[in-house]
Amino acid sequence: MANSAKESPAAPGKRERLVASAARLLHERGVQGPTLAEIAEAADVPLGNVYYYFKTRDELVGAVIDSRSKQIHSLLGSLDRRSSPAARLKGLTETWLDSSEMVAAHGCPIGTLCSEIGKTAAGPSKASALIFDPLLDWSEAQFREMGHGRQARTLATTLIAGVQGAAVLSAAQGDPRLMRSQVRRLDRWIDEVAESPGARGS
Amino acid sequence: MANSAKESPAAPGKRERLVASAARLLHERGVQGPTLAEIAEAADVPLGNVYYYFKTRDELVGAVIDSRSKQIHSLLGSLDRRSSPAARLKGLTETWLDSSEMVAAHGCPIGTLCSEIGKTAAGPSKASALIFDPLLDWSEAQFREMGHGRQARTLATTLIAGVQGAAVLSAAQGDPRLMRSQVRRLDRWIDEVAESPGARGS
Repeated sequence: MANSAKESPAAPGKRERLVASAARLLHERGVQGPTLAEIAEAADVPLGNVYYYFKTRDELVGAVIDSRSKQIHSLLGSLDRRSSPAARLKGLTETWLDSSEMVAAHGCPIGTLCSEIGKTAAGPSKASALIFDPLLDWSEAQFREMGHGRQARTLATTLIAGVQGAAVLSAAQGDPRLMRSQVRRLDRWIDEVAESPGARGS
Repeated sequence: MANSAKESPAAPGKRERLVASAARLLHERGVQGPTLAEIAEAADVPLGNVYYYFKTRDELVGAVIDSRSKQIHSLLGSLDRRSSPAARLKGLTETWLDSSEMVAAHGCPIGTLCSEIGKTAAGPSKASALIFDPLLDWSEAQFREMGHGRQARTLATTLIAGVQGAAVLSAAQGDPRLMRSQVRRLDRWIDEVAESPGARGS
Protein backbone atom coordinates (compact mmCIF):
# COMPACT_ATOMS: atom_id res chain seq x y z
CA MET A 1 0.00 0.00 0.00
CA ALA A 2 3.08 2.27 -0.09
CA ASN A 3 2.72 5.09 -2.60
CA SER A 4 5.66 3.99 -4.74
CA ALA A 5 5.36 4.09 -8.55
CA LYS A 6 5.22 0.31 -8.62
CA GLU A 7 2.34 0.06 -6.15
CA SER A 8 0.31 3.12 -7.20
CA PRO A 9 -3.30 1.97 -7.20
CA ALA A 10 -3.95 4.05 -10.32
CA ALA A 11 -1.16 2.41 -12.35
CA PRO A 12 -2.21 2.01 -15.99
CA GLY A 13 -3.58 -1.39 -16.91
CA LYS A 14 -4.57 -2.47 -13.41
CA ARG A 15 -8.28 -1.84 -13.91
CA GLU A 16 -8.17 -3.63 -17.27
CA ARG A 17 -6.29 -6.56 -15.74
CA LEU A 18 -8.86 -6.84 -12.93
CA VAL A 19 -11.80 -6.84 -15.36
CA ALA A 20 -10.13 -9.37 -17.69
CA SER A 21 -9.27 -11.63 -14.76
CA ALA A 22 -12.82 -11.34 -13.37
CA ALA A 23 -14.34 -12.08 -16.80
CA ARG A 24 -12.24 -15.23 -17.12
CA LEU A 25 -12.79 -16.52 -13.56
CA LEU A 26 -16.54 -15.75 -13.56
CA HIS A 27 -16.82 -17.70 -16.81
CA GLU A 28 -14.78 -20.65 -15.57
CA ARG A 29 -16.20 -20.88 -12.03
CA GLY A 30 -19.53 -19.07 -12.15
CA VAL A 31 -20.65 -15.55 -11.22
CA GLN A 32 -20.90 -16.50 -7.55
CA GLY A 33 -17.68 -18.54 -7.58
CA PRO A 34 -14.41 -16.61 -7.26
CA THR A 35 -13.76 -14.19 -4.41
CA LEU A 36 -12.42 -10.67 -4.94
CA ALA A 37 -9.14 -11.86 -3.44
CA GLU A 38 -8.84 -14.67 -6.02
CA ILE A 39 -9.66 -12.29 -8.87
CA ALA A 40 -7.07 -9.79 -7.63
CA GLU A 41 -4.43 -12.49 -7.30
CA ALA A 42 -5.09 -13.80 -10.82
CA ALA A 43 -4.78 -10.20 -12.09
CA ASP A 44 -1.54 -9.72 -10.13
CA VAL A 45 -3.06 -6.68 -8.40
CA PRO A 46 -2.82 -6.27 -4.59
CA LEU A 47 -6.24 -6.81 -3.00
CA GLY A 48 -6.00 -3.43 -1.28
CA ASN A 49 -5.83 -1.76 -4.71
CA VAL A 50 -9.05 -3.38 -5.92
CA TYR A 51 -11.20 -1.02 -3.84
CA TYR A 52 -9.61 1.95 -5.60
CA TYR A 53 -11.43 0.79 -8.75
CA PHE A 54 -14.42 -1.17 -7.44
CA LYS A 55 -16.16 -0.42 -4.14
CA THR A 56 -18.01 -3.76 -4.15
CA ARG A 57 -17.82 -7.14 -5.87
CA ASP A 58 -21.08 -6.23 -7.66
CA GLU A 59 -19.35 -3.21 -9.22
CA LEU A 60 -16.65 -5.48 -10.63
CA VAL A 61 -19.31 -7.86 -11.99
CA GLY A 62 -20.95 -4.79 -13.60
CA ALA A 63 -17.61 -3.93 -15.24
CA VAL A 64 -17.41 -7.49 -16.64
CA ILE A 65 -20.89 -7.05 -18.14
CA ASP A 66 -19.80 -3.73 -19.71
CA SER A 67 -16.67 -5.40 -21.06
CA ARG A 68 -18.64 -8.29 -22.63
CA SER A 69 -21.07 -5.77 -24.09
CA LYS A 70 -18.20 -3.82 -25.69
CA GLN A 71 -16.84 -7.06 -27.19
CA ILE A 72 -20.28 -7.78 -28.69
CA HIS A 73 -20.58 -4.29 -30.21
CA SER A 74 -17.05 -4.52 -31.59
CA LEU A 75 -17.79 -7.93 -33.14
CA LEU A 76 -21.07 -6.74 -34.69
CA GLY A 77 -19.30 -3.65 -36.04
CA SER A 78 -16.69 -5.79 -37.78
CA LEU A 79 -19.38 -8.13 -39.19
CA ASP A 80 -21.24 -5.14 -40.66
CA ARG A 81 -18.51 -4.90 -43.29
CA ARG A 82 -19.62 -8.23 -44.82
CA SER A 83 -21.60 -7.91 -48.03
CA SER A 84 -24.86 -9.81 -47.32
CA PRO A 85 -27.12 -10.39 -44.30
CA ALA A 86 -26.57 -14.17 -44.54
CA ALA A 87 -22.78 -13.69 -44.55
CA ARG A 88 -23.05 -11.38 -41.54
CA LEU A 89 -25.22 -13.84 -39.57
CA LYS A 90 -22.86 -16.70 -40.41
CA GLY A 91 -19.99 -14.54 -39.22
CA LEU A 92 -21.80 -14.28 -35.91
CA THR A 93 -22.37 -18.05 -35.52
CA GLU A 94 -18.71 -18.57 -36.48
CA THR A 95 -17.65 -17.02 -33.16
CA TRP A 96 -19.21 -19.96 -31.29
CA LEU A 97 -17.62 -22.36 -33.78
CA ASP A 98 -14.19 -20.83 -33.14
CA SER A 99 -14.67 -21.01 -29.38
CA SER A 100 -16.29 -24.46 -29.26
CA GLU A 101 -13.56 -25.94 -27.03
CA MET A 102 -13.98 -23.13 -24.50
CA VAL A 103 -17.79 -23.40 -24.68
CA ALA A 104 -17.65 -27.17 -24.08
CA ALA A 105 -15.40 -26.57 -21.06
CA HIS A 106 -17.26 -23.68 -19.38
CA GLY A 107 -20.40 -22.82 -21.39
CA CYS A 108 -21.02 -19.70 -23.45
CA PRO A 109 -19.33 -16.73 -21.72
CA ILE A 110 -22.29 -14.42 -22.32
CA GLY A 111 -25.09 -16.99 -21.95
CA THR A 112 -23.92 -18.33 -18.59
CA LEU A 113 -23.13 -14.78 -17.38
CA CYS A 114 -26.69 -13.60 -18.14
CA SER A 115 -28.22 -16.82 -16.82
CA GLU A 116 -26.34 -16.73 -13.51
CA ILE A 117 -26.84 -13.00 -12.97
CA GLY A 118 -30.56 -13.56 -13.57
CA LYS A 119 -30.56 -15.70 -10.40
CA THR A 120 -29.24 -12.88 -8.26
CA ALA A 121 -31.74 -10.21 -9.39
CA ALA A 122 -35.40 -10.05 -10.35
CA GLY A 123 -36.68 -9.23 -13.82
CA PRO A 124 -34.68 -8.65 -17.00
CA SER A 125 -31.14 -7.86 -15.97
CA LYS A 126 -28.69 -5.19 -17.05
CA ALA A 127 -26.60 -8.09 -18.41
CA SER A 128 -29.35 -9.14 -20.79
CA ALA A 129 -30.08 -5.56 -21.86
CA LEU A 130 -26.41 -4.90 -22.62
CA ILE A 131 -25.53 -8.28 -24.13
CA PHE A 132 -28.54 -10.13 -25.59
CA ASP A 133 -30.52 -7.09 -26.74
CA PRO A 134 -27.78 -5.86 -29.13
CA LEU A 135 -27.38 -9.41 -30.50
CA LEU A 136 -31.14 -9.80 -31.04
CA ASP A 137 -31.57 -6.29 -32.50
CA TRP A 138 -28.66 -6.73 -34.89
CA SER A 139 -29.79 -10.22 -36.01
CA GLU A 140 -33.33 -8.92 -36.48
CA ALA A 141 -31.96 -6.17 -38.75
CA GLN A 142 -30.21 -8.80 -40.89
CA PHE A 143 -33.38 -10.87 -41.29
CA ARG A 144 -35.33 -7.69 -42.08
CA GLU A 145 -32.80 -6.83 -44.78
CA MET A 146 -33.44 -10.30 -46.25
CA GLY A 147 -37.09 -9.27 -46.57
CA HIS A 148 -38.54 -11.08 -43.52
CA GLY A 149 -40.09 -7.94 -42.08
CA ARG A 150 -42.83 -9.37 -39.89
CA GLN A 151 -40.93 -12.51 -38.90
CA ALA A 152 -37.52 -10.89 -38.42
CA ARG A 153 -37.64 -10.73 -34.59
CA THR A 154 -38.82 -14.34 -34.26
CA LEU A 155 -36.08 -15.51 -36.65
CA ALA A 156 -33.48 -13.58 -34.63
CA THR A 157 -34.72 -15.19 -31.41
CA THR A 158 -34.60 -18.64 -33.03
CA LEU A 159 -31.00 -18.06 -34.13
CA ILE A 160 -29.67 -16.80 -30.80
CA ALA A 161 -31.68 -19.43 -28.89
CA GLY A 162 -30.24 -22.11 -31.19
CA VAL A 163 -26.69 -21.04 -30.43
CA GLN A 164 -27.36 -20.71 -26.68
CA GLY A 165 -29.07 -24.10 -26.43
CA ALA A 166 -26.21 -25.77 -28.27
CA ALA A 167 -23.81 -24.14 -25.81
CA VAL A 168 -25.81 -25.43 -22.80
CA LEU A 169 -25.80 -29.01 -24.14
CA SER A 170 -22.21 -28.86 -25.38
CA ALA A 171 -21.02 -27.74 -21.94
CA ALA A 172 -23.22 -30.28 -20.12
CA GLN A 173 -21.76 -33.07 -22.25
CA GLY A 174 -18.25 -31.59 -22.33
CA ASP A 175 -18.35 -32.10 -26.12
CA PRO A 176 -17.23 -29.33 -28.54
CA ARG A 177 -18.44 -31.39 -31.56
CA LEU A 178 -22.02 -30.82 -30.41
CA MET A 179 -21.49 -27.03 -30.59
CA ARG A 180 -19.86 -27.31 -34.01
CA SER A 181 -22.53 -29.55 -35.56
CA GLN A 182 -25.32 -27.27 -34.30
CA VAL A 183 -23.58 -24.17 -35.72
CA ARG A 184 -23.30 -25.92 -39.11
CA ARG A 185 -27.02 -26.76 -38.89
CA LEU A 186 -27.84 -23.11 -38.06
CA ASP A 187 -25.69 -21.94 -41.02
CA ARG A 188 -27.70 -24.15 -43.40
CA TRP A 189 -30.88 -22.76 -41.83
CA ILE A 190 -29.65 -19.17 -42.38
CA ASP A 191 -29.13 -19.97 -46.09
CA GLU A 192 -32.61 -21.51 -46.31
CA VAL A 193 -34.18 -18.47 -44.64
CA ALA A 194 -32.24 -16.15 -46.99
CA GLU A 195 -33.68 -18.01 -49.99
CA SER A 196 -37.17 -18.66 -48.60
CA PRO A 197 -40.40 -17.23 -50.11
CA GLY A 198 -40.68 -14.57 -47.41
CA ALA A 199 -37.36 -13.06 -48.46
CA ARG A 200 -37.29 -10.08 -50.82
CA GLY A 201 -36.72 -10.92 -54.49
CA SER A 202 -37.56 -14.62 -54.31
CA MET B 1 -31.01 -31.72 19.16
CA ALA B 2 -32.98 -33.42 21.98
CA ASN B 3 -34.00 -36.94 21.07
CA SER B 4 -37.74 -36.29 21.41
CA ALA B 5 -40.17 -37.74 18.87
CA LYS B 6 -40.71 -34.29 17.41
CA GLU B 7 -37.01 -33.65 16.87
CA SER B 8 -35.92 -37.12 15.79
CA PRO B 9 -33.52 -36.55 12.92
CA ALA B 10 -34.95 -39.60 11.12
CA ALA B 11 -38.55 -38.34 11.20
CA PRO B 12 -40.37 -39.30 7.99
CA GLY B 13 -40.46 -36.60 5.34
CA LYS B 14 -37.48 -34.60 6.59
CA ARG B 15 -35.10 -35.84 3.92
CA GLU B 16 -37.74 -35.26 1.22
CA ARG B 17 -38.40 -31.75 2.55
CA LEU B 18 -34.69 -30.93 2.54
CA VAL B 19 -34.25 -32.12 -1.06
CA ALA B 20 -37.38 -30.28 -2.26
CA SER B 21 -36.29 -27.10 -0.50
CA ALA B 22 -32.75 -27.40 -1.93
CA ALA B 23 -34.12 -28.03 -5.45
CA ARG B 24 -36.26 -24.89 -5.25
CA LEU B 25 -33.61 -22.61 -3.74
CA LEU B 26 -30.82 -23.83 -6.05
CA HIS B 27 -33.11 -23.11 -9.00
CA GLU B 28 -34.12 -19.67 -7.75
CA ARG B 29 -30.71 -18.48 -6.49
CA GLY B 30 -28.17 -20.68 -8.27
CA VAL B 31 -26.25 -23.81 -7.25
CA GLN B 32 -23.68 -21.75 -5.35
CA GLY B 33 -26.30 -19.42 -3.84
CA PRO B 34 -28.16 -20.68 -0.75
CA THR B 35 -26.34 -21.93 2.34
CA LEU B 36 -27.19 -25.22 4.06
CA ALA B 37 -28.69 -23.16 6.90
CA GLU B 38 -31.02 -21.34 4.51
CA ILE B 39 -32.06 -24.60 2.86
CA ALA B 40 -32.74 -26.20 6.26
CA GLU B 41 -34.77 -23.19 7.39
CA ALA B 42 -36.89 -23.22 4.22
CA ALA B 43 -37.50 -26.96 4.79
CA ASP B 44 -38.41 -26.35 8.43
CA VAL B 45 -35.72 -28.83 9.51
CA PRO B 46 -33.23 -27.95 12.29
CA LEU B 47 -29.77 -27.37 10.81
CA GLY B 48 -28.31 -29.94 13.19
CA ASN B 49 -30.55 -32.61 11.63
CA VAL B 50 -29.28 -31.91 8.09
CA TYR B 51 -26.00 -33.71 8.76
CA TYR B 52 -27.92 -36.87 9.65
CA TYR B 53 -28.94 -37.06 5.97
CA PHE B 54 -26.17 -35.20 4.15
CA LYS B 55 -22.58 -35.06 5.36
CA THR B 56 -21.70 -32.18 3.01
CA ARG B 57 -23.47 -29.55 0.93
CA ASP B 58 -22.24 -31.44 -2.19
CA GLU B 59 -24.14 -34.54 -1.04
CA LEU B 60 -27.34 -32.50 -0.85
CA VAL B 61 -26.69 -31.08 -4.34
CA GLY B 62 -26.22 -34.69 -5.50
CA ALA B 63 -29.61 -35.58 -4.02
CA VAL B 64 -31.18 -32.69 -5.94
CA ILE B 65 -29.67 -34.07 -9.16
CA ASP B 66 -31.08 -37.53 -8.35
CA SER B 67 -34.47 -36.00 -7.65
CA ARG B 68 -34.52 -34.06 -10.96
CA SER B 69 -33.44 -37.24 -12.76
CA LYS B 70 -36.32 -39.18 -11.21
CA GLN B 71 -38.76 -36.45 -12.32
CA ILE B 72 -37.42 -36.75 -15.89
CA HIS B 73 -37.77 -40.54 -15.94
CA SER B 74 -41.28 -40.29 -14.51
CA LEU B 75 -42.26 -37.72 -17.15
CA LEU B 76 -40.81 -39.79 -20.00
CA GLY B 77 -42.59 -42.89 -18.68
CA SER B 78 -45.94 -41.09 -18.74
CA LEU B 79 -45.27 -39.74 -22.25
CA ASP B 80 -44.54 -43.26 -23.51
CA ARG B 81 -48.28 -43.96 -23.29
CA ARG B 82 -48.95 -41.48 -26.13
CA SER B 83 -49.68 -43.12 -29.47
CA SER B 84 -47.14 -41.54 -31.85
CA PRO B 85 -43.51 -40.33 -31.60
CA ALA B 86 -44.57 -36.80 -32.63
CA ALA B 87 -47.24 -36.72 -29.89
CA ARG B 88 -44.68 -37.93 -27.34
CA LEU B 89 -42.12 -35.29 -28.35
CA LYS B 90 -44.76 -32.56 -28.23
CA GLY B 91 -45.73 -33.82 -24.78
CA LEU B 92 -42.13 -33.22 -23.77
CA THR B 93 -41.96 -29.65 -25.14
CA GLU B 94 -45.31 -28.97 -23.43
CA THR B 95 -43.62 -29.21 -20.02
CA TRP B 96 -41.60 -26.04 -20.84
CA LEU B 97 -44.78 -24.41 -22.15
CA ASP B 98 -46.59 -25.18 -18.89
CA SER B 99 -43.69 -23.84 -16.83
CA SER B 100 -42.92 -20.79 -18.98
CA GLU B 101 -43.55 -18.31 -16.13
CA MET B 102 -41.14 -20.17 -13.85
CA VAL B 103 -38.56 -20.48 -16.66
CA ALA B 104 -38.77 -16.74 -17.41
CA ALA B 105 -38.24 -16.01 -13.71
CA HIS B 106 -35.35 -18.41 -12.94
CA GLY B 107 -34.35 -20.30 -16.10
CA CYS B 108 -34.91 -23.98 -16.86
CA PRO B 109 -34.54 -25.97 -13.60
CA ILE B 110 -32.52 -28.72 -15.27
CA GLY B 111 -30.59 -26.57 -17.78
CA THR B 112 -29.33 -24.07 -15.22
CA LEU B 113 -28.58 -26.88 -12.74
CA CYS B 114 -26.38 -28.72 -15.27
CA SER B 115 -24.82 -25.48 -16.51
CA GLU B 116 -23.90 -24.24 -13.03
CA ILE B 117 -22.66 -27.61 -11.80
CA GLY B 118 -20.48 -27.79 -14.93
CA LYS B 119 -18.60 -24.75 -13.55
CA THR B 120 -17.71 -26.53 -10.33
CA ALA B 121 -16.34 -29.75 -11.92
CA ALA B 122 -14.34 -30.68 -15.00
CA GLY B 123 -15.68 -32.77 -17.88
CA PRO B 124 -19.21 -34.09 -18.38
CA SER B 125 -20.95 -33.99 -15.01
CA LYS B 126 -23.08 -36.50 -13.16
CA ALA B 127 -25.90 -33.95 -13.58
CA SER B 128 -25.69 -34.12 -17.35
CA ALA B 129 -25.41 -37.92 -17.38
CA LEU B 130 -28.48 -38.30 -15.15
CA ILE B 131 -30.59 -35.51 -16.65
CA PHE B 132 -29.68 -34.66 -20.27
CA ASP B 133 -28.63 -38.15 -21.39
CA PRO B 134 -32.07 -39.71 -20.67
CA LEU B 135 -33.77 -36.77 -22.44
CA LEU B 136 -31.51 -37.09 -25.49
CA ASP B 137 -31.71 -40.91 -25.61
CA TRP B 138 -35.50 -40.88 -25.32
CA SER B 139 -35.92 -38.14 -27.96
CA GLU B 140 -33.52 -39.99 -30.27
CA ALA B 141 -35.69 -43.12 -29.91
CA GLN B 142 -38.77 -41.11 -30.97
CA PHE B 143 -37.04 -39.73 -34.09
CA ARG B 144 -35.76 -43.22 -34.90
CA GLU B 145 -39.30 -44.57 -34.64
CA MET B 146 -40.30 -41.87 -37.17
CA GLY B 147 -37.77 -43.45 -39.53
CA HIS B 148 -34.89 -40.98 -39.13
CA GLY B 149 -32.34 -43.63 -38.21
CA ARG B 150 -29.07 -41.94 -39.12
CA GLN B 151 -30.20 -38.43 -38.20
CA ALA B 152 -32.10 -39.33 -35.03
CA ARG B 153 -29.39 -38.24 -32.56
CA THR B 154 -28.80 -34.91 -34.32
CA LEU B 155 -32.55 -34.25 -34.39
CA ALA B 156 -32.78 -35.04 -30.67
CA THR B 157 -29.91 -32.64 -29.95
CA THR B 158 -31.57 -29.93 -32.06
CA LEU B 159 -34.83 -30.35 -30.12
CA ILE B 160 -33.33 -30.25 -26.62
CA ALA B 161 -30.94 -27.44 -27.61
CA GLY B 162 -33.91 -25.49 -29.01
CA VAL B 163 -35.78 -25.77 -25.72
CA GLN B 164 -32.71 -24.94 -23.63
CA GLY B 165 -31.76 -21.93 -25.74
CA ALA B 166 -35.30 -20.58 -25.55
CA ALA B 167 -35.12 -20.98 -21.76
CA VAL B 168 -31.81 -19.05 -21.58
CA LEU B 169 -33.21 -16.14 -23.62
CA SER B 170 -36.61 -16.21 -21.92
CA ALA B 171 -34.95 -15.98 -18.49
CA ALA B 172 -32.48 -13.31 -19.64
CA GLN B 173 -35.36 -11.19 -20.94
CA GLY B 174 -37.74 -12.15 -18.12
CA ASP B 175 -40.32 -12.90 -20.82
CA PRO B 176 -42.41 -16.12 -20.75
CA ARG B 177 -43.88 -15.34 -24.20
CA LEU B 178 -40.46 -15.98 -25.73
CA MET B 179 -40.44 -19.51 -24.25
CA ARG B 180 -43.99 -20.15 -25.45
CA SER B 181 -43.43 -18.93 -29.02
CA GLN B 182 -40.26 -21.03 -29.35
CA VAL B 183 -42.07 -24.16 -28.08
CA ARG B 184 -44.81 -23.58 -30.67
CA ARG B 185 -42.12 -23.24 -33.35
CA LEU B 186 -40.46 -26.49 -32.18
CA ASP B 187 -43.85 -28.25 -32.26
CA ARG B 188 -44.35 -27.22 -35.91
CA TRP B 189 -40.81 -28.44 -36.62
CA ILE B 190 -41.57 -31.83 -34.95
CA ASP B 191 -44.59 -32.21 -37.27
CA GLU B 192 -42.44 -31.31 -40.30
CA VAL B 193 -39.77 -33.82 -39.30
CA ALA B 194 -42.45 -36.51 -38.75
CA GLU B 195 -43.71 -35.94 -42.30
CA SER B 196 -40.34 -35.33 -43.99
CA PRO B 197 -38.84 -37.61 -46.71
CA GLY B 198 -36.45 -39.25 -44.26
CA ALA B 199 -39.37 -40.56 -42.22
CA ARG B 200 -40.61 -44.10 -42.75
CA GLY B 201 -43.64 -44.40 -45.07
CA SER B 202 -43.35 -41.00 -46.77
